[in-house]
Amino acid sequence: MNFVSENLAVNERGHLTVGGVDVMDLKEKYGTPLYVMDEDMIRSHLRTYREALNTYYNGNGLCQFASKAFCTKYMCNLVAEEGLGLDVVSGGELYTALSANFPADKICFHGNNKTKDELTFAIGHNVGTIVIDNIYELEQVNHIASDMGKIQNVIFRIKPGIDAHTHDFIMTGQIDSKFGFALETGEALSAVSLVKEKKHLCYQGLHCHIGSQIFDVKPFCEAARVMMAFIKEIKDKTGLVTEELDLGGGFGIRYVESDDPIAYDKYIKAVSREVKAQAEMLGVKIPKILMEPGRSVVAPAGITVYEVGCVKEIPNVRTYVSVDGGMADNPRYIMYGAEYSAVLANKAGEAAECTYTVAGKCCESGDILIEQAKLPKVEVGDTLCVLSTGAYNYSMASNYNRIPRPAVVMVSGGQDKLIVKRETYEDLIRNDL
Amino acid sequence: MNFVSENLAVNERGHLTVGGVDVMDLKEKYGTPLYVMDEDMIRSHLRTYREALNTYYNGNGLCQFASKAFCTKYMCNLVAEEGLGLDVVSGGELYTALSANFPADKICFHGNNKTKDELTFAIGHNVGTIVIDNIYELEQVNHIASDMGKIQNVIFRIKPGIDAHTHDFIMTGQIDSKFGFALETGEALSAVSLVKEKKHLCYQGLHCHIGSQIFDVKPFCEAARVMMAFIKEIKDKTGLVTEELDLGGGFGIRYVESDDPIAYDKYIKAVSREVKAQAEMLGVKIPKILMEPGRSVVAPAGITVYEVGCVKEIPNVRTYVSVDGGMADNPRYIMYGAEYSAVLANKAGEAAECTYTVAGKCCESGDILIEQAKLPKVEVGDTLCVLSTGAYNYSMASNYNRIPRPAVVMVSGGQDKLIVKRETYEDLIRNDL
Repeated sequence: MNFVSENLAVNERGHLTVGGVDVMDLKEKYGTPLYVMDEDMIRSHLRTYREALNTYYNGNGLCQFASKAFCTKYMCNLVAEEGLGLDVVSGGELYTALSANFPADKICFHGNNKTKDELTFAIGHNVGTIVIDNIYELEQVNHIASDMGKIQNVIFRIKPGIDAHTHDFIMTGQIDSKFGFALETGEALSAVSLVKEKKHLCYQGLHCHIGSQIFDVKPFCEAARVMMAFIKEIKDKTGLVTEELDLGGGFGIRYVESDDPIAYDKYIKAVSREVKAQAEMLGVKIPKILMEPGRSVVAPAGITVYEVGCVKEIPNVRTYVSVDGGMADNPRYIMYGAEYSAVLANKAGEAAECTYTVAGKCCESGDILIEQAKLPKVEVGDTLCVLSTGAYNYSMASNYNRIPRPAVVMVSGGQDKLIVKRETYEDLIRNDL
Repeated sequence: MNFVSENLAVNERGHLTVGGVDVMDLKEKYGTPLYVMDEDMIRSHLRTYREALNTYYNGNGLCQFASKAFCTKYMCNLVAEEGLGLDVVSGGELYTALSANFPADKICFHGNNKTKDELTFAIGHNVGTIVIDNIYELEQVNHIASDMGKIQNVIFRIKPGIDAHTHDFIMTGQIDSKFGFALETGEALSAVSLVKEKKHLCYQGLHCHIGSQIFDVKPFCEAARVMMAFIKEIKDKTGLVTEELDLGGGFGIRYVESDDPIAYDKYIKAVSREVKAQAEMLGVKIPKILMEPGRSVVAPAGITVYEVGCVKEIPNVRTYVSVDGGMADNPRYIMYGAEYSAVLANKAGEAAECTYTVAGKCCESGDILIEQAKLPKVEVGDTLCVLSTGAYNYSMASNYNRIPRPAVVMVSGGQDKLIVKRETYEDLIRNDL
């Protein structure tokens, strides 16, 4: 069988395995719905990024896992153990990282509207870098650092004006974005120029992010060229030396067969070459490269395991398969029309000859997981797995319909380990008065 | 000033008030983001429904609040105090209701894929009615009731084939739906016929739900006609007497000025007349009418209070106003393209002469609350309220970006009361191992 992720296989019982572990055993042990993540694959992805920077850029860089894709204490530990940095976007993500004793100097704090409390929390805990999104923030970070008698390293979020041809909702590098400073209006240059007057800020460099789920190295190289030209302009007009260039994330993964991702190290290779060539040509210092993979690290490593509770054929229309989860644990179809693949774990060796619409159990017509899933004949009680759900599923889960969020289990070396407990009904009313 | 909800006004300080309470005082006391709900308005809506059934249908009916719109212990208490019933769609909603000592016999349990655990929980706690969605469920409910030595009242969810011309995602009465039994294929009649063989089920009647945010009584009357004809067919072909007809919810509310909702009692009036006329014409027993308003009870009674952290003008494109919440506390724009109105609470008396895009703080371009909000000139630190957020906001909130969910405050008689505590960072990692 061919699956969208290489860590999936069929064992001698005809069951789906993830990282070598029988999914039916996990269902038996932990119940459904259940998020299962493959630790070995996650570590392998983290190493690919780290080693590519060593190979192609003399190690003069750091990949920072974009924790918004999947943020738990256990995941922060994995990232720390593999020697990578962390990109956080809120006080809550920062709190999670610090609770896991993640080294603060390797944390980079993003966001278009960090609150004063969040910035105070971050600066107070010596977060390595704050990404300045706007002028108010520049003032506020300087002010807070001054109050604490600290010097805060900052980089500036720039809109490079690159259109990476992805879904509108996840295209962030163009000028019409809530994030960052525009290049072409001169806004970016004036913002960077201001940093020299701020005694409690230390200018380190620039950041850009051109979109999500991108399958091509070209827009990254183009972004690198645009940013290097800006680095030259900054040097010429302000004398500031840019030490760091953060090129964000957005590397595509395979959700369905037609998705054709490229090997992650190729992004690093292409970008490394581009940055070095531009630095030489423009006569500027070769910057440290930062990158922020999120989805590509965890999405292919995760599956969600459900039990089928109902099969409903509507003649000449479609057949609905209803599972015991849905938009509460995976809102990506209803939000973005995201596509997924599915497998029946208990019939993983059978040919997928039928087409079903996989629906959730929420009281809402839009609660769909997959519009057209190719599966063997489905029966009530079957174990249906939605694949590539390691990113933006647990992290986006809600308690809509007061459904408790599923547990998260990691598998590694053929063993399983609970890393996030299933929510209880009691958890749902914990804050009710 | 004219606002979308009649409980909003401007006081002598030029501040927005909700239910007579100054929003700036609530911000000062509870912080932002903050959900504020008007208890007096909620009670008034609940009474409107109850009294309309008394006036137009001799009290031979029950409105059941659709708790998926807003489910907390406090809300369940309000519904109980006003003498209405409750529609729950999961074990979690049922648990919340029972925790508030809501009378179980006035609870109706919905859902296209209730799990065995949920059904066991419901039957064990003597839930008044279970709405049978499919044949597996019919068998399972009978089986569980048999094991417990109980007789369970059931009604059947029917797809009446009515198209209420609403957004695709929230149109649920047509044949292509995961919910219920289709009329035109004969599926519904065979399902109902089966109930006679099930010794532990007591047939009570039928349910249908034709959609959401509907501004017209006609589709409800049409649904009533279709269902009454089916009741006659059931009587003729099976001899079963239908005691209850549940016509669901879906009554529209005003999110933006152009929405033109009708008085809620008009739905009841029109439907009551239609059902009585049909019963007389067809020679069937006049059924007890059940209705399930959710959004219309709570949406207009709620606002969300934010603080503005950034104003970013993009020349010739738009101006973004970023607030300290967003898609994590209100995902309805990103899910449905939902429209909302906004007011600056600290400048509520000023003319709304500018147009802004109100964005959230999540690290995602699609994190928008309102695309074109008419507001006075916005400055950092202003207090921005999104209106009509009482339904499907708290209930759909996530911890995306690890943002803690806001507190919920009720106002009544000029007083405020915390009903759901703000989540803490500690809450976010409570289940992390």
